[in-house]
Formats: sequence, structure tokens, C-alpha cells
Amino acid sequence: MRDRAEKYFQDLRDRICAAFELLDGGSFERTSWERPGGGGGLMSAMKGKVFEKVGVNCSTVFGEMDPEFGKGIPGYRNYFFATGISLVAHMVNPLVPAFHLNLRYIETDHSWFGGGADMTPSFPFEEDITDYHRALKTACDQHDPIYYSRFKKWCDDYFYLEHRKEPRGSEGIFFDHIVQDPEKDFKFVRDIGEAFLEACPKVILKRKDMPFTEEQRDFQLYKRGRYVEFNLLYDQGTQFGLKTGANANAVLMSMPPVVKWK
Amino acid sequence: MRDRAEKYFQDLRDRICAAFELLDGGSFERTSWERPGGGGGLMSAMKGKVFEKVGVNCSTVFGEMDPEFGKGIPGYRNYFFATGISLVAHMVNPLVPAFHLNLRYIETDHSWFGGGADMTPSFPFEEDITDYHRALKTACDQHDPIYYSRFKKWCDDYFYLEHRKEPRGSEGIFFDHIVQDPEKDFKFVRDIGEAFLEACPKVILKRKDMPFTEEQRDFQLYKRGRYVEFNLLYDQGTQFGLKTGANANAVLMSMPPVVKWK
Repeated sequence: MRDRAEKYFQDLRDRICAAFELLDGGSFERTSWERPGGGGGLMSAMKGKVFEKVGVNCSTVFGEMDPEFGKGIPGYRNYFFATGISLVAHMVNPLVPAFHLNLRYIETDHSWFGGGADMTPSFPFEEDITDYHRALKTACDQHDPIYYSRFKKWCDDYFYLEHRKEPRGSEGIFFDHIVQDPEKDFKFVRDIGEAFLEACPKVILKRKDMPFTEEQRDFQLYKRGRYVEFNLLYDQGTQFGLKTGANANAVLMSMPPVVKWK
Repeated sequence: MRDRAEKYFQDLRDRICAAFELLDGGSFERTSWERPGGGGGLMSAMKGKVFEKVGVNCSTVFGEMDPEFGKGIPGYRNYFFATGISLVAHMVNPLVPAFHLNLRYIETDHSWFGGGADMTPSFPFEEDITDYHRALKTACDQHDPIYYSRFKKWCDDYFYLEHRKEPRGSEGIFFDHIVQDPEKDFKFVRDIGEAFLEACPKVILKRKDMPFTEEQRDFQLYKRGRYVEFNLLYDQGTQFGLKTGANANAVLMSMPPVVKWK
């Protein structure tokens, strides 16, 4: 499963990058990095006319981790393996939502999948939310009728800024520690990847050329502050990356290019 | 001691704000906030021509805290009291360092002082660092010959970004859990407050009108990203504030107004 999951994530990365390059006119640059304790990854980044900053990181890391942190990982004794894709897109136009995708396969004394796909609009369009969710729901429904509503709630709960008593404004699904059946779970994760590839570019295409005001742009930069707060204070992937000694630039690739705090 | 410490912090706040208003030409706005579990504070903020964003928060909070978090607080059983002043200044001119001051008095089953004063230059001037440190060292030396070197090292160790293996670039002193003798410790903390009030405005005055380039400004915004990473990932004061239910805007007043990530 390790190799198959890794290959799928890399293949998905290539197809997403191709779609984003088509939308933007720019091109991704790739940088590889190594984890001193074992493994590494390849970070693909683009700054363009539509994507103010988009990063797609495929990584495969393994080995030991800080025992204190390992306590929080199901079944961790002294070895882990993790392969995944992580994508964050911050857009030039404030009417285009920020997008986030993460899919991962993890092994400790057992194995599981986790991930999520969501978007964070500064100015929500009902239609975009409906379209994006329909794609995710269709993918979920093929696997378990409970998945969509459960994972949507999980997403809403997860992306909640407790210190501000505010939702981050994310829309999507989130799931972790899926341990039904490896083949079926892998199929589910791939369907989520494909749903993202189908739905995300459509929303971007629809909004990227809409005119916007300076006030709207300013509000977008302010919303990004919540994104930063969430990622550094709460996000498990960020904590996992930083505490397992992954490359800080790769882990913090999700940071928005420009942010404001009031 | 509670009242005397609180009064000194408020008095220091007034004198610092007066000095900053003189340097800037602008004026502070004050907002009070309450902590639902007990206590509250007064946040003084200014956006001006010299200070891009400066916040001075005086707070007195008490009551219970999350038992999980309380484990990390010396002598915490089920009640704490904390009064303090916290200041963060982000400057318009990239040749002026960012400044930080924090002084606090805490009670659990015993009482102590903690705090620190430091600065984060984007473009360090040897002379500024020497002057600023001389003021802090003079204050320290009046109390214990070991204080300055010990608290300088504590500062260097504390403001280290482990995930990037980089110092934040701070210069100053940091100390916590000072439990020698309440009267003497209070005197020491006041001397640090006075040293800051003497040294900080001098550095600002010397640099605020120096011409700078767009590249220098850009580098300053990039350095601020490290500031944000530090505050949200590591800073004990930020964690303490957010987890004890203090006002998020007051706790995160330290966030820079504009930040860039590469």
C-alpha cells in the first residue's frame, strides 16, 4: 500500500499542477527536501497572476519521532511511516476562495488514511459552495451514506478558532484514522482526490476574472490572518510536520504570501 | 503586592505611551476587555507615522484555568492570579527594530515575577544593540552580578525558532519564576521597566527618519513572519492568554500589521 498510495498522490499532484498552470498561465517550480531522520519530499510552488501563492507538497517520511509527540499518534511505538499530498492555494482575487487539500496514508502498528478538502471564501458565493460540496458528497456517498455528513461536521469542528470563538470559514470535509479496509479506504481517498480535481478548478475559473475593490482585497488579507492563526495554533498536520523534523519551509508552505492583522 | 505591581505596570504604561506619542505625533486608543472567568484588561493601541502598530496591554486576570494547561504552571492547584504589562511595537521604518516588553507578577500557591525586554532588528546597528543592552545590564547589575548574562542567554534560548533552526533575531533579556524576595524582585522588575523606558525611545529617535529602500521594507515584512511563527508556535504568554480565555484580540495584539511569507 505504501508505494501505491505514494504513486497516487504524486500522480494527483501532477494533474492538479497541470490544471492550475492552465488556469494561471504560470508554471510550478519544484524543490526537493530531505528529512534528516528518514524520507523527504518534493515541494511544487507557483506564484502567478491567478494564484498569488500555491504550494503542493508530496512527502514520504518515516523513522522515529519525539516520544512525547508520538503519544498523540494512534499505535505509535517507535516507528512511523507517512506519505501524503498537501495543497494550499492563496488567490490574487479576493472573490476566489483559498483552497486546501490533504490526503495521507500513515502506518504505526496499524495503518490508516486521513485527509480533507475544504475552501475558505472571503466572500462566499452560495453557488460555489453548493457545487464544491456536491462533488465531495458524490464521492463520499459512493462509499458510505454516513461519510459526507460526518466528515462535513468534522471539518466544521476542526477548523474552528476556539480562541476567537469563530469558524475559520472553511467549507468541506475532514476525516482521520479511517481503518475500515485498506483497499476500500484507498479507493475512497482517491475519489476525494478526483472530486477535488474536478470541483476546485471550476470555482477558480468562474471567479478569477471578476472585478474586485481594494476593500475586498483588504478583507481577504485580514481573513488570511485567521488562516495563519489556525495553522500555527491548531493544525495537526503543521504540528506533525514541525515536530517530526520535516523541512520547515515545506511544512509552512501553507502560509499566505501577504497577511494583515487589525 | 498585587495592587502595587498592578499600579506600577499601569503607571509605566502611561509613561511609555506618552513617550511614544511624542515620537510619533499620533495618539493611543484604549479598549477595555473582560475575562469571563475573572478579571480583564485595558489595551492601548496606536497606528501612526513612526509606529506602524504598537499595542500596550495591561491586564489583571485570576480564577481557574484548564487543568491540563495548569500542570505547566508552577504551584498551580485550582486558582491563579496574574497581573502584567505587555508591549509590542512594529515600526514603519525597517531600520528601526521591533520592540517587546513584558513584565508580570503571578500567584498560585506561591508568587513570582517574570518578564523580559528585547528588540528584533531587521537590519541590526551595532550601536543600537550596545546601547539597549547597556541599559538592561546596568539595571540587572544593581541586583545580582549573574542576572544579566543569565537572562541574556535565557532570551537567546527562548526566542529560538526550533523548526527553522534560526534565532528570531531578538536581543535582550528574558526571565521567569524569580522567587528571591518579593520586595527585591519587585524592585528589579521596576528597574527593567525603567531601563526599557530609557533605552527604547532613544533607538527609535535615532533611526525613525533614516531613508530606506523598498527591498529593506520587504525584508522587514518577511522577518515579521518569523515573529508570527514564534508567537503562535512557542510563546508562553500567548499560549497562557489564549488558554486561560483572555480576549483573543488583546493577546494577539502582538501580531504585526502586515506580514509576508516567501
